[in-house]
Amino acid sequence: MVEQVKTLASPVKARKPQILKGFRDHLPRQMILRQRMMAIVREVFERHGFEPLDTPAIEYLEVLSGKAGENEKLMYHFSDQGDRAVGLRYDLTVPLARVVAMHQNELVLPFKRYHIAPVWRSEKPQRGRFREFWQCDADIVGSPSMLADAQVAAVMIDALSAIGLPSFTIRINHRKLLESLARAAGVPDAQAVGVYRVIDKLDKIGSAAVGAELDGSGIPASASARVLDLVGRTGEPGDVLAGLREELVEIPGATLAVDELSELFRYLRELQVPSDRYTLDLALARGLDYYTGPVFEATVEEPQVGSVAGAGRYDGLVGTFLGRSVPATGMSLGLERIIEVVEQFNLLPIRSSVADVFVPAFPDAIEAAARITGVLRGAGLRVDQSVQPQRSVGDQLKYAGRKEISIAVIVGTSEAAAGVCNVKNLCTGVQETCPWERVVDQVRSFLEHEETGA
Amino acid sequence: MVEQVKTLASPVKARKPQILKGFRDHLPRQMILRQRMMAIVREVFERHGFEPLDTPAIEYLEVLSGKAGENEKLMYHFSDQGDRAVGLRYDLTVPLARVVAMHQNELVLPFKRYHIAPVWRSEKPQRGRFREFWQCDADIVGSPSMLADAQVAAVMIDALSAIGLPSFTIRINHRKLLESLARAAGVPDAQAVGVYRVIDKLDKIGSAAVGAELDGSGIPASASARVLDLVGRTGEPGDVLAGLREELVEIPGATLAVDELSELFRYLRELQVPSDRYTLDLALARGLDYYTGPVFEATVEEPQVGSVAGAGRYDGLVGTFLGRSVPATGMSLGLERIIEVVEQFNLLPIRSSVADVFVPAFPDAIEAAARITGVLRGAGLRVDQSVQPQRSVGDQLKYAGRKEISIAVIVGTSEAAAGVCNVKNLCTGVQETCPWERVVDQVRSFLEHEETGA
Repeated sequence: MVEQVKTLASPVKARKPQILKGFRDHLPRQMILRQRMMAIVREVFERHGFEPLDTPAIEYLEVLSGKAGENEKLMYHFSDQGDRAVGLRYDLTVPLARVVAMHQNELVLPFKRYHIAPVWRSEKPQRGRFREFWQCDADIVGSPSMLADAQVAAVMIDALSAIGLPSFTIRINHRKLLESLARAAGVPDAQAVGVYRVIDKLDKIGSAAVGAELDGSGIPASASARVLDLVGRTGEPGDVLAGLREELVEIPGATLAVDELSELFRYLRELQVPSDRYTLDLALARGLDYYTGPVFEATVEEPQVGSVAGAGRYDGLVGTFLGRSVPATGMSLGLERIIEVVEQFNLLPIRSSVADVFVPAFPDAIEAAARITGVLRGAGLRVDQSVQPQRSVGDQLKYAGRKEISIAVIVGTSEAAAGVCNVKNLCTGVQETCPWERVVDQVRSFLEHEETGA
Repeated sequence: MVEQVKTLASPVKARKPQILKGFRDHLPRQMILRQRMMAIVREVFERHGFEPLDTPAIEYLEVLSGKAGENEKLMYHFSDQGDRAVGLRYDLTVPLARVVAMHQNELVLPFKRYHIAPVWRSEKPQRGRFREFWQCDADIVGSPSMLADAQVAAVMIDALSAIGLPSFTIRINHRKLLESLARAAGVPDAQAVGVYRVIDKLDKIGSAAVGAELDGSGIPASASARVLDLVGRTGEPGDVLAGLREELVEIPGATLAVDELSELFRYLRELQVPSDRYTLDLALARGLDYYTGPVFEATVEEPQVGSVAGAGRYDGLVGTFLGRSVPATGMSLGLERIIEVVEQFNLLPIRSSVADVFVPAFPDAIEAAARITGVLRGAGLRVDQSVQPQRSVGDQLKYAGRKEISIAVIVGTSEAAAGVCNVKNLCTGVQETCPWERVVDQVRSFLEHEETGA
């Protein structure tokens, strides 16, 4: 009791600064990398003709409900001040479907859009899994052509290459082919979804473990063996697909799925997508329930971090707002995971500060420092001008050092009077005195030495 | 009842696509402008040495509570799945205060950060006022120097200039000077806040109306006349401040406020901030309760849209999490309002599509089109390649026309065989046939004609 009174009576009561579990602050060092990554992805999306879109973080709960299976259960939802049931978006696909339905007269179909934005899911936080995370999606709405799917795969591969991932592959399958394979193997329809989930793990746990799980799942032993044989086939996609076309000729839907996949692989070749970047994987299922055609998953092999992007055709979702089927296919990059990889393996070397140059403030020479700051900024350089005229220049330079700004331009009273300044490399200590009109060149030359490591 | 049954029995049940009032979709045409604007602001912030920061959309309710006066009442808040009381951020300043407190060991003070992100307020929606809107903030935490305030004003002026606003002014005052003026005029302390609110309207409704409101507010008539006289003074800031220094010598705090403002104006001059961009306005109060020193407001005169940015020193807020005072000053750009002005007056001409070039798909010449697409993209051009091989080329070009893509590169079977392609300006109909190796130059030349309007 006494303690409590003491706390209350203390002159300044501090609130506890805390952040919710599963949420993160992105401090400048991280943000510089994140912004660089997003800029790369945005540039690739635009080079492929995808247009930017943004939608609200908050939507009517009804709009967000009933479409995305498991993710939906993780939705943040509440009643707003007007007692409307609302939720925070948990993906960027459901908002896209709403936008296409609401703006059908303004939008030109096929609609190729990208969307880079945060989404929220109340998942159990764990390493690499957050409750707020950014998605980078690129989708094509309104085209049933496999050329659209091929372009989605092409933009995905281009984006991952541009980021600098040294080794990754896109595995490709077709939802309806997987269904046909299960049917051909004698898996009862009611158990099919469970079977997809098990065989999807083939590349992670191997065929023996998958076989054991299948045997334990209650499907006939013959079906288990046969499905493992079918989904395990590898080889040149054209050959594998040609073989399946004959074997599955009696299975409803199989021929169409095989034809679509064959067309897709032909387009990928014609689009000059490097053939070592993609492969046919008949076991690939992908988690989301809404895929209806080709599905894609990007896996990074080196460093071995698993799936970093997914894609697929989902002809059912967009139409739920329109009452008719609207073909759609698209991809989503797992930005957070990719950033983790890029950081860990230093794939994109970046500076830890945005500033190129630091200009300290001498109380009696602020005007000269300001002039030089203006000249440097006018030349496109990023200048952090000190706001500590009351501190010693040594202290001010320590600040620059802690921020890892490598160049300082120093103008004291005598330099100001002589019309010169000292350009100093704070890492090496090397210093050059130059007239004001040469300061931009001098700084540039120091920065170049910096970058080439000379 | 019958009708309901009918609806339920209909083969496809459409959900209603709707968006919450006060929220907006940003379709590509708007997003292209918004991204351009944000890129300009980001570039200016970085040129001034501000570093990027991002924080979660959702915070503990306790973190967001008790700091930002009226805005706080408009907060979206709810209980999350773990029954924690949480809220959506309604500004970017309170999260900054939390970040400084939580990461004090990692951050280097003075901390100059910018933050460009959406915030949410459950306000009554009206023209130009939204429940989700983006803020662009730049703040300096940890410096009591007026050089920090001057730099905040300088970055604000640079950002508004870079956006291309043709005519704007930053009005400047000091919270403590305003308090001193009210005290000197004989306004009772208890009524001071109400008086600030009234005189803040001086530039909008004029001195007669403000005088009438003051008379009706219950303060002594002599005080009303005197405060109007004091806050209405205009002239060269140095002269006005010199006069006030003498008149207010007996008022506690007045001398310090006058000295700080004088120092600020001196720094603005030394920083080469154009003097027609700022002015002393002794009546300026600014809405937020937390300002403790200089305050700034940017007003656009032409077109006459009022306030588009605000700034000020708030030495009390950041320390609420630390239990000690931390000096801070910063600015916030009203991005939505500025975008409205830029759109209405076409201040930043932009294209309505990101794509430079459209490449239609002939079913028998997809490989050739893909090659050319690759060549164009390799040269940095943004290419929208058709996903409608099943449509006629005329239909495909109509799509490009509706998207206002002005150039198409057309390769049919015969062109593919001959190793040529047709580069067509879709606006003028002008078409040139060129070999594949010249396609980039040909497209560039068409695009240049486009831009120069030739």
